[in-house]
Amino acid sequence: MERTGIIIVAGGSGRRAGGARPKQFAFLGGMPVLARTINNFAAAMPGAEIVAVLPEQHIEFWNNLAARFDVAAHAVVAGGAERFDSVKNGLAALTTDPELIAVQDGVRPLGTAAMIRRVAAAAARHGAAIPVVEAVDSFRETEGEPDAEGIVPSRIVDRRRLRIVQTPQFFRADVLRRAYEADYRTEFTDDASVVEAAGHPVCLTEGERENLKLTTPEDFTIAEALIAAREEAEEEQAATDAKHL
Amino acid sequence: MERTGIIIVAGGSGRRAGGARPKQFAFLGGMPVLARTINNFAAAMPGAEIVAVLPEQHIEFWNNLAARFDVAAHAVVAGGAERFDSVKNGLAALTTDPELIAVQDGVRPLGTAAMIRRVAAAAARHGAAIPVVEAVDSFRETEGEPDAEGIVPSRIVDRRRLRIVQTPQFFRADVLRRAYEADYRTEFTDDASVVEAAGHPVCLTEGERENLKLTTPEDFTIAEALIAAREEAEEEQAATDAKHL
Repeated sequence: MERTGIIIVAGGSGRRAGGARPKQFAFLGGMPVLARTINNFAAAMPGAEIVAVLPEQHIEFWNNLAARFDVAAHAVVAGGAERFDSVKNGLAALTTDPELIAVQDGVRPLGTAAMIRRVAAAAARHGAAIPVVEAVDSFRETEGEPDAEGIVPSRIVDRRRLRIVQTPQFFRADVLRRAYEADYRTEFTDDASVVEAAGHPVCLTEGERENLKLTTPEDFTIAEALIAAREEAEEEQAATDAKHL
Repeated sequence: MERTGIIIVAGGSGRRAGGARPKQFAFLGGMPVLARTINNFAAAMPGAEIVAVLPEQHIEFWNNLAARFDVAAHAVVAGGAERFDSVKNGLAALTTDPELIAVQDGVRPLGTAAMIRRVAAAAARHGAAIPVVEAVDSFRETEGEPDAEGIVPSRIVDRRRLRIVQTPQFFRADVLRRAYEADYRTEFTDDASVVEAAGHPVCLTEGERENLKLTTPEDFTIAEALIAAREEAEEEQAATDAKHL
């Protein structure tokens, strides 16, 4: 397997999830979300170099928190004003000269190892790959400002062509580093958009609906339920395995 | 309050949720999903006329199933080939000449009464209103077929302008009935699109992230967790109320 670097971006202030604690530090199944995300990658890609990018003012808090849990080895570096700057700092902090680099949301702890490896393999082949899932709901795109009655003009989006973008976004190191030499632009909403702006196409691979980005309190309720369901399935599997010994 | 009719469309074969039983009949918190959806509307809009539209071959099964649960009064009519045809049949089955009509997904049982009434009020004023929520994830729109390498071309969608469309979609009866005099077109993905095609603008109102459309097995896990969390909150509230008696 290629040498792999994982940049975990955990820079959000977490206002949308409510509560004073930024959501990357909130507890999920008895463990901080960021710890779960780190451990998930350490398990899926053994030997990968992991760098967590945190707001400067949260680093000491995180180091104290992480010391109380069984968190896989990872470096911590300070982020920047925009996600773009945080990823740049993460890139600069990688020390093992990885051939493949993933950028991962710190608050997305539930991707399976199979999915993570699938995206990595697609990036090794095509240079850039991201996991996407099909949209189940209908979507509209708003167009301009509310009218006199307060109605916002909007048009239907063809959902058959719409894909929900997740992370990890995996890239060949040369592709990602070259793309991040650009100056920041507001349309850089994720790493795929940065790489694409540099002229490299992005391969869409199959993501997972359970690979949630934990943003609101409801998302945490949902994630707790998914973790409980997975643990139950694992216990049943273990019981079945024990029977057959 | 205006006389209100609710058309609950439960025509899907439920293949995406897995299992032989169409997902509108699957159990959620010990009750069929469709029963929960019906009761949710009966509670939010007392006195509303409710019509459930089901595939012809499922009607007997549903009537037998519903008889075993405490399901609010509702008529059942057979659906058609497309959702469009099912809604038309639902419209024809309303007997109380409602002034406002909602069209609701049968597999969307979790909307709160406050949200349902908010959409109804907006429709009473503007003629057509639908609940929408902001998109948290990033989105891409695919453009054409995979290239020689299997890469599907795609472009980023500006998520700040994207809204996820939910139900109930509420309309003034005259607006909805006139729109449904049209011939079916493939771009009619929901009722708002039918009404819009007839020249009437649609008011976007605030939806709810928990107002899930139950489509996959994971959605059911999530919905069970949300119901458990709500019941817990209700019990705590009841205990607090009891203390203050």
